[in-house]
This record gives sequence, C-alpha cells and structure tokens, in this order.
Amino acid sequence: MPNAALLEFFDSPTDAPFLIEHVSDEFTSVCPKTGHPDFGVITLRYVPAAVCVELKSLKLYYQSFRNEGIFYEAVTNQIRDDLQSAMSPRWMQIITEWRGRGGIRSRIVATAGEVPAEYLRA
Amino acid sequence: MPNAALLEFFDSPTDAPFLIEHVSDEFTSVCPKTGHPDFGVITLRYVPAAVCVELKSLKLYYQSFRNEGIFYEAVTNQIRDDLQSAMSPRWMQIITEWRGRGGIRSRIVATAGEVPAEYLRA
Amino acid sequence: MPNAALLEFFDSPTDAPFLIEHVSDEFTSVCPKTGHPDFGVITLRYVPAAVCVELKSLKLYYQSFRNEGIFYEAVTNQIRDDLQSAMSPRWMQIITEWRGRGGIRSRIVATAGEVPAEYLRA
Amino acid sequence: MPNAALLEFFDSPTDAPFLIEHVSDEFTSVCPKTGHPDFGVITLRYVPAAVCVELKSLKLYYQSFRNEGIFYEAVTNQIRDDLQSAMSPRWMQIITEWRGRGGIRSRIVATAGEVPAEYLRA
Amino acid sequence: MPNAALLEFFDSPTDAPFLIEHVSDEFTSVCPKTGHPDFGVITLRYVPAAVCVELKSLKLYYQSFRNEGIFYEAVTNQIRDDLQSAMSPRWMQIITEWRGRGGIRSRIVATAGEVPAEYLRA
Amino acid sequence: MPNAALLEFFDSPTDAPFLIEHVSDEFTSVCPKTGHPDFGVITLRYVPAAVCVELKSLKLYYQSFRNEGIFYEAVTNQIRDDLQSAMSPRWMQIITEWRGRGGIRSRIVATAGEVPAEYLRA
Amino acid sequence: MPNAALLEFFDSPTDAPFLIEHVSDEFTSVCPKTGHPDFGVITLRYVPAAVCVELKSLKLYYQSFRNEGIFYEAVTNQIRDDLQSAMSPRWMQIITEWRGRGGIRSRIVATAGEVPAEYLRA
Amino acid sequence: MPNAALLEFFDSPTDAPFLIEHVSDEFTSVCPKTGHPDFGVITLRYVPAAVCVELKSLKLYYQSFRNEGIFYEAVTNQIRDDLQSAMSPRWMQIITEWRGRGGIRSRIVATAGEVPAEYLRA
Amino acid sequence: MPNAALLEFFDSPTDAPFLIEHVSDEFTSVCPKTGHPDFGVITLRYVPAAVCVELKSLKLYYQSFRNEGIFYEAVTNQIRDDLQSAMSPRWMQIITEWRGRGGIRSRIVATAGEVPAEYLRA
Amino acid sequence: MPNAALLEFFDSPTDAPFLIEHVSDEFTSVCPKTGHPDFGVITLRYVPAAVCVELKSLKLYYQSFRNEGIFYEAVTNQIRDDLQSAMSPRWMQIITEWRGRGGIRSRIVATAGEVPAEYLRA
Repeated sequence: MPNAALLEFFDSPTDAPFLIEHVSDEFTSVCPKTGHPDFGVITLRYVPAAVCVELKSLKLYYQSFRNEGIFYEAVTNQIRDDLQSAMSPRWMQIITEWRGRGGIRSRIVATAGEVPAEYLRA
Repeated sequence: MPNAALLEFFDSPTDAPFLIEHVSDEFTSVCPKTGHPDFGVITLRYVPAAVCVELKSLKLYYQSFRNEGIFYEAVTNQIRDDLQSAMSPRWMQIITEWRGRGGIRSRIVATAGEVPAEYLRA
Repeated sequence: MPNAALLEFFDSPTDAPFLIEHVSDEFTSVCPKTGHPDFGVITLRYVPAAVCVELKSLKLYYQSFRNEGIFYEAVTNQIRDDLQSAMSPRWMQIITEWRGRGGIRSRIVATAGEVPAEYLRA
Repeated sequence: MPNAALLEFFDSPTDAPFLIEHVSDEFTSVCPKTGHPDFGVITLRYVPAAVCVELKSLKLYYQSFRNEGIFYEAVTNQIRDDLQSAMSPRWMQIITEWRGRGGIRSRIVATAGEVPAEYLRA
Repeated sequence: MPNAALLEFFDSPTDAPFLIEHVSDEFTSVCPKTGHPDFGVITLRYVPAAVCVELKSLKLYYQSFRNEGIFYEAVTNQIRDDLQSAMSPRWMQIITEWRGRGGIRSRIVATAGEVPAEYLRA
Repeated sequence: MPNAALLEFFDSPTDAPFLIEHVSDEFTSVCPKTGHPDFGVITLRYVPAAVCVELKSLKLYYQSFRNEGIFYEAVTNQIRDDLQSAMSPRWMQIITEWRGRGGIRSRIVATAGEVPAEYLRA
Repeated sequence: MPNAALLEFFDSPTDAPFLIEHVSDEFTSVCPKTGHPDFGVITLRYVPAAVCVELKSLKLYYQSFRNEGIFYEAVTNQIRDDLQSAMSPRWMQIITEWRGRGGIRSRIVATAGEVPAEYLRA
Repeated sequence: MPNAALLEFFDSPTDAPFLIEHVSDEFTSVCPKTGHPDFGVITLRYVPAAVCVELKSLKLYYQSFRNEGIFYEAVTNQIRDDLQSAMSPRWMQIITEWRGRGGIRSRIVATAGEVPAEYLRA
Repeated sequence: MPNAALLEFFDSPTDAPFLIEHVSDEFTSVCPKTGHPDFGVITLRYVPAAVCVELKSLKLYYQSFRNEGIFYEAVTNQIRDDLQSAMSPRWMQIITEWRGRGGIRSRIVATAGEVPAEYLRA
Repeated sequence: MPNAALLEFFDSPTDAPFLIEHVSDEFTSVCPKTGHPDFGVITLRYVPAAVCVELKSLKLYYQSFRNEGIFYEAVTNQIRDDLQSAMSPRWMQIITEWRGRGGIRSRIVATAGEVPAEYLRA
C-alpha cells in the first residue's frame, strides 16, 4: 500500500538553488480494472527549498505501490502530492511513462509551481 | 466507420492541472484514392478540464477507422474535433505520423487551445 | 527541369489552423559545377491558409529536379518560392539536408512568414 | 581529497563572449553511506570572463575526488563553488549524471548566473 | 598554416533571409602543448547578408589547419573571425566538437550577432 | 480472406543462384480470440529456382489477410505453404515479428529446404 | 508462487518444424537475500514437437513469480524445466536478462536439446 | 545506360589474399514498370585475384544506371556479372538494399565463388 | 589490492549445463605507467561445473582493483586465473573493454576451455 | 612517413592464448591522387605469441602516416606486414574503415594466419 511515511529527507547542502532529478526505471503497480501488473518509469525533478529526499527512502516509497491497484493518473498525482506536502520544494515535476497496453503507451506529467527561469534549459 | 460514440470518460482525479499523453503505434485506415491501407502513429496530448478519456474506449474508437477511406488531414482533424467536443479539455494536441507513400513521410498536428505555460517544457 | 505546374492542391478540410509536414527522403539533383549527382532529404512544413498540396503531385514536382544542374541554396529557395506563390500558406518552412561532399554535410532552411505561437512546440 | 589548488587557468583568447563545454565521462567518487564507488559524467559549461580553465588541470582536479566519500548533491555544488570562485565566469553550469543505484539514476544541475540570451540555443 | 585567403564567396541567390549550415566531420589540427593531433567536427551556421561561402573553398580553408599547433578555443574564434570579416553575415555561429583527451570531450561555441527570431526553431 | 491467387511471378533473370529478401513493415490481421487487430513485420527470404514473386502482387496477397481472424503461427505457416507450392524455391524462410500483446512480443520462423552454404553469411 | 498449472497448450498447426520466440519485457520477482524486487526480460525460443504454449497462459505463469523470492539462476532453470516437461519440444532455450544490481547486469541461458541445424541462423 | 567500359582497375598491392568492401549509399535507377526512381545502397565485397577496381571509376559506373529502367534483381545480377568478368576475383558478393515501395523493403544478394574460410568472420 | 579471497560461491542449482553472464559497467584500476585511472567494462561468461560465483562478492572482488597499478592485459588474465582456479567451470571467458587512451580503445578476451557446442549461438 | 621503428613491444603476461583488440578512431593519411586527406578507423586484432605491442608506440606509428600519400589498400597491407614481421603473432587481423569519398565508404580486411577456433565467437 503506498506509504509516504517511508520517505526520509536531509537538509539541502546549499542555499543556492539547484535542480535534482531522479529517474526510477523499475516502477510497478497493478491495474485496478484487469488485475494485471503495470510497468513504468518515474522521473522526479525538483528545486529544493530546505530539504532533499533521501534516495533509498524514495526507492522504498516507490516499492510500496507494488501490489496496489491504482490507475496511471492517480499514481502520478499521488506521488506529486505526497512529495510536495513533505518537501515544499520551490518547484517540482513528476513524469510517469508507462509501457503499452493494447498498443497504446502513456505518459503523465504533474507539476507543482512554475519552472524557475534559470532552469528552462537544464 | 469512425464512431465517437465508442469513447468513454472518467472524472479527473484532481483539480490541479496535469498533462496526459497517449501514443498509439497501431493505427490504420484506408487511402480513399488508391484503396491501399495507411499506417500511422497517433499521439494525443491534453490537459483535462473535468474528465479524462478511458484508455480501452480510445483504442476501440481508433479501431473504428480501420476500414474507412479517409485522408491524413481529415483523420487528424476529425480526432481533434471528436475529442474536443466530448472532453472540452483546457488544451489538446493531436499529432499523426504516417509511414511513407512514394518516398514521402507525413506528420500532421492539430491543436485546440493554447499550450499552458507550465507545460512548455513537459 | 523543375516544373511547378506539376503541383496540385485541394481545399483545406478545416478553417482551424493546423500544421502539415511532408519529408521526402529521395530527392536528387545534379551539381552544376561537377556534373555529379546530389542527394538530399527535403522537409516541407506549413500551416495552410485555404489549400493543401496534394502528395503525389508534390512527389512528381520533386522528381522534376532529377537531371537539373542546380546548387543546394537555389533548390531550397526555388521550392520555397514555388510553393509560397501557389499556396500562400499562413507560414511555411523548407529544410533541405544534403549528404556529404568532400567530408562536409549541408543543411539549408528557408522560411516564409513567422512561426505561429501555437506551433512553437509542434 | 578534492583539491581546487590543482586547477590552472589561462587568459581567454578573445574579448568576445563565447561558450565552452567540457564533458568528463570518467568521474568516480565514493558513497559516504555505503563505502561503494559512485560513477558519473560531469559536464561543465561556461562563458569565460577573463580566464579559461586548463584541460589537464581540470582532469587532475576531478581525479582528486576518487577516494572521497561525498554525496551527489555535494559533489555538484562543490565543483560549482570551486570553479566559480576561481574563474568568476559570466555564466556557468555544472551537470552531473550518475549511474543507477537501486534502480534509480540521478542528475544534478547547479548554475551560477543567468544564461546569456545569445547562447539560449547553443 | 590557417589561410583565410583560400576562402571564396558567391552572391546569395535571394534577398529573403535564409539559414545555411555546413558540418565538416573531418577537421584535424595539432595540440601546441603535446604535438599530438586533435580531431574535431566543425559546424558553421549563418544567415547570409550579401554573399555565401563556396563549399570547396571552405574545405581547403579547413585543411589549412592540418599541421598547425593551435588550441580548441583559438581554432573556434579564428574561424569565427575569418568568416565574419570576409562575409559580414546577418548572424553566424561556429560550433567545434572535439574527440576526448584524457577522458574529457569538449565543445566550443562562438557567435556573431543575435539569432534572428524566425530561426529560433530552425 | 487470404488469397494466394493474387500472387504473380516472373522468370528469374539468371540461372546463377542468388538471394532475395522482401520485408513488409505493414502487415495486419485480426486475433481470432479477441477480435482485436494484430500488427507485424513479415520477412520473406528465398533463393529462386525458376521464378521470382512480383512485388506488387506480394503486397496485395499480404493485404488479403487484413480482416482475417488468424493466429501468428498459422499466418506464418500459411505464407510459407502458399509461396512454396507456387514458386518451389531452392530455399525459403518466412520470419514474422509481432508487436506485443500483454507485454509479450513474438517472432515465428518457418523454413522450406536447407540454407545453401554460400548464403550462410548473407 | 510460481505455478506451472497455469500453462495451457494448443496443437501445433503443422507437422513441419518451425521456430517460435516469445519475449516478455515485464518479468519481476523478488531477491530472496535482500527482499528487493528484480526486473528482467524473459525470452523463450522453441521448436514445437506436438504442442505450442498459449500466449495468455504464458503471461499468467510469468506473473505467478511476482512476489516469489528466487535467484536469477533458479528462475531460469525452473522455467526451462516447467516448459520442457509440459511441452517436450524438439528444442528449447530460455534466456533471462536482468537489470543491474550494484553495477552488474546479468544474463542466464538454459537450453534443452540441440539447436536444429536449419535454425542456426534464424 | 549501364556502361561497364567505365570501370578501371589497378594491380593488387599484395599477393596475400585480403578483403575489400565498398558501400555506395547513393545509387539510383528507374523502375521500368512505373517510371518512378528507385533508390538503393550497393555493397561490393571481394577478395582480389590480380586486380582491384578503382574507386572513382566504380562511382561513374554506378552513375551510368541513373536513368536506366531496370528491376532490382537485374541491377544486382548485372553488377555481379560486369565486375566478375572484368576482375575474376577469388570471391565476390553484391548486396543491394532498396528503400521501400508500397511498404516493402527489398535486399538482393548475388555471389560469385565460395567465401574463403579466413573471411567467414570478416 | 586485487583480492581473490573476497570471492564467494554457491552450489549450482542444476546438473544440467547452462550459461551465466555478468557484465560490470563500473570497473576502474590505475595505469602503472602514467598513474592515471583506467575505466572498463568487464564481462564474465561461464558454464558452471559445480559452483556459481555470488554476485555481491564478485562486485567486491572487482572493487579491490580500484587503486591497483595494473595493465589491461594483466587485469584480464588475472581475473581469468582467479576465477578459473576457484570455480573450475566447464568453460569461461573474460572480456574487458576499455575507454580510449590517446584515441585508441582496447578490448581483451581471455578464455578457459572450449565453447560448448550448444552455446555457440547463446 | 610510415615508420615501423616507432613500434615497441613487451612480453606477453601469460603463455595461455588470449585475444587483444585495439581500435584507433583517429587515423588520417593523404590520398596520393587528389592530395586530400583521408580519415579512417583502424582495428588491430591479434593473439600474441611471445610479445604484445605497446599502446603509445602503436599510436605514434599510426601518426607517422599523417602526411603520407598512400591508398587504402596499401595502408592496410603495410600495417599488417609491419606488425606481423615485428610480432609474429599466432593470428592477426587489420580492419580499416574509411569515411566516404564521392558517396562510397570502404572497408579493407587483411589477415595473417587462421582464426583460432576458441576465438571464433570473440
């Protein structure tokens, strides 16, 4: 069951703004309609305010979706909401990319805040 | 025969705007001039207002073009019009990419509404 | 000999603006200096005003350059001029990409009109 | 141990602004938590003010991280800070890309100054 | 020895602005420090004012660097300066990309003038 | 309905053995179990005895499977049998590669006769 | 829990030997040592004797490993043994390819019977 | 019109056998049925006996097919025959690969003599 | 310092022969001549006799080369010798691939025993 | 001027046979007919008898061809002959791959001795 309590954080090493991106190639959850597994790639991009997410805790948080029946759109918005309320970053973006079902591949993008100008080309 | 009545929708899981992209690699229709089949990739990108399109119904809607004689430009505009009138999204884009005919590959882009600023780099 | 009279047009299927792109991988003309053949890829991108170019006629128009002695820059500008005067599109771009000569690959871009804002990301 | 004193500089060959990018595919440091080595690609992009960094000295500076226990975020910010204080460039960007740990690949971007307009498409 | 006198020019075939790009995959010069050869790819992009550079003369000009001891930054700026003073283009950009030395690959970008708006997406 | 009578043949232009390969990227039939379309790539490789298959007739023969309910294994064996009995080649191989269903991609290979030694590396 | 009883079979459509290959990109099991999930690609290649494996049942069989703690080598040998005893094919090969752990990617190959000569180049 | 008299030869620089491969990416001829141009890649591989083919003469020989109406199979066999009777190599192979027509790509292989054992892995 | 005592083994899960391949993308040692680090990819392929190498112990064994001054050829032969004397496999192959030095990339292959016939195409 | 005296050798670290491959991406010589530079990739593969070639000396030997007027076939055979007479390896292969001239890319393979059976799949 998705469990945001698994997430841990550490203080940002600098006050200067910078961009962090973590790409997880090994996400899996279950389609609530068919009961078949879904497989996706989850990209988290953010500019930290005060804290950064600890990498191993992020992995365990993602693993907590393994046997959860949940749609693509809901996965994406829940990760955005969980991380935003725990980290309050200056800006955050969650991109989920899903292997095809019935010949259709999907990609969902949820954002919190505006892209800071200095990272437009990052 | 293209049949928009096949499309089904579900309520968006959030009021916050987010982007959805579905790429169908398996679209086929028929050239009305030569009677030969056309093969294309259809990309639907949109920011939902109130509802999202259900994935299996989208697949069946696309399959309803299988034996229809219809030009590239008309396919693209019809999908845009059908989905726009059924979903009224905040923004929508249909991109169709077609395998070559006589050594010429084609790509058609139809849009409804302006790209929201926060998705310019999505 | 390049022959714009080969081009045929049909009425745009919609009043709403949309983007059309045709990529021809099989263009060949002759270098007027050396007499050796040149090989290129021609990309035509445009937003139609009232008419669209018919695909088979575009192919025959391109084939009319086959034994013409003409430089890269002139090919690109002539195609832009021929299509612009025949179609008067809202916006048009011709991109020619040429296989190497003496270890140098070339690419020429000729444009008519400004890129409409809604296609900046198309 | 990371040693900024290894860095050497030479006068910029021109007063006109220009962009320099050095990509090092062979960076390695050590994870302070697990003691296992980390492997990354470091990209330095900058517009010099008065001086440029000498390439061999940059390589030796990167090698000085080899047996240092240091997190991804700290590596990125330290390189930015060391180079910025030594070169005072008009603009600078450090991009570090790290091979996966536990199925998650990471990328960190630290910037000093705003991207000059003329390099937005460089 | 680099020799700008080798460059020849011809009148632009049109008054309408257009973009020209020549990519040379076969550039070599010599490192003045080690005496070892350097290998690079040189991209020239410009919008002509009155004249265009002739392709074979550009190749011979590039070949004149073959046994010259010269740094990456100086090669890039010299080509920009030589072409700018001979052609006075509306806009010009030289991009040099160099194979790795000591595990570091480099890329230098020198520009003359501002990117014209209509080519921002070319 | 698959129709081998569509196939036409012409005399081989030489008595010397040679290899012919035709790859069709645009094959589609229908799954007899689900009614959903299947999409595949069909490769025909053969060494002619007396006759070669005419290309346009091969395309029409493949198109005759478009609305047929038939499994992957049966498609592959039927094409092998139809062509073998019509052409009696010295050697023939049919390779069908199918887009994924439920996350599983398939490939079927049916052969008639032994690979001639001189084409082992063709 | 891995369950070979899920596998279903159908009669081979021909007596002539032919090769079947199914590639599943979405296999996951659990490492018995760390409890973390493993992700792999499973390729099954075989020449049927009397029966072929039904595709949907193969998918369900693979899914039955989802929450099983089992090493790479054991997964590979168990699939080979389960399919061999149920199908008795003329020849069979299982290839499992696993995403990296600690920077090491693995691939295991288990075979039953000798590769028939006519498929050496298939 | 194909003209083997354009071919020139020079003495092999060694008595020891060695393999030569020339790949021409810029071959074009005309389909005798439709009158439309065909585009292909021609690979010549051979082990010389006494003479080697001169590269520029090979290019001119290939250019002599430019406006010839001739099928794929005939092009391949004619090149094999012209070169074999002029060079009498120890072994020769012509591979022609053609861009698609009606969604079908073709590849023809004609051989003269047996592949020498020492080049089986070349 | 390279330390074969770090290697651990477990009993092969089957008596039937099978192939195991482990690819480590993160190997580094030091050039004994220049003192600069070397970076390589190490592939181990083997058919076990009685035991298999444990993956984490293999990683620690590879890490023990991190600060060792040792040539490419010696690394390859030492890994072959250490694993062969510890595992006595039916067949084993070590392939090391090294990033370029001075523009030259290297690859070393050391083998123990003959490739079993059934794995020639593995 | 090509100078085999630049080559240096060291004793093979083992009596067991093993394969060594060095790929130089930065070879250049001059066409004796046109005076224009040629650019190629040189691959040396060998099984040492008693000695191995030292890498930096190999690089200097290759650099000695820089301003030599010499054909592709002669370069390949001369490198084979120089290395064979200096090293007397158990087996050796030189593969030269050349960037295109007039749209034709070339590849030359010269061998000394028979490929040892255990390296057929190396």
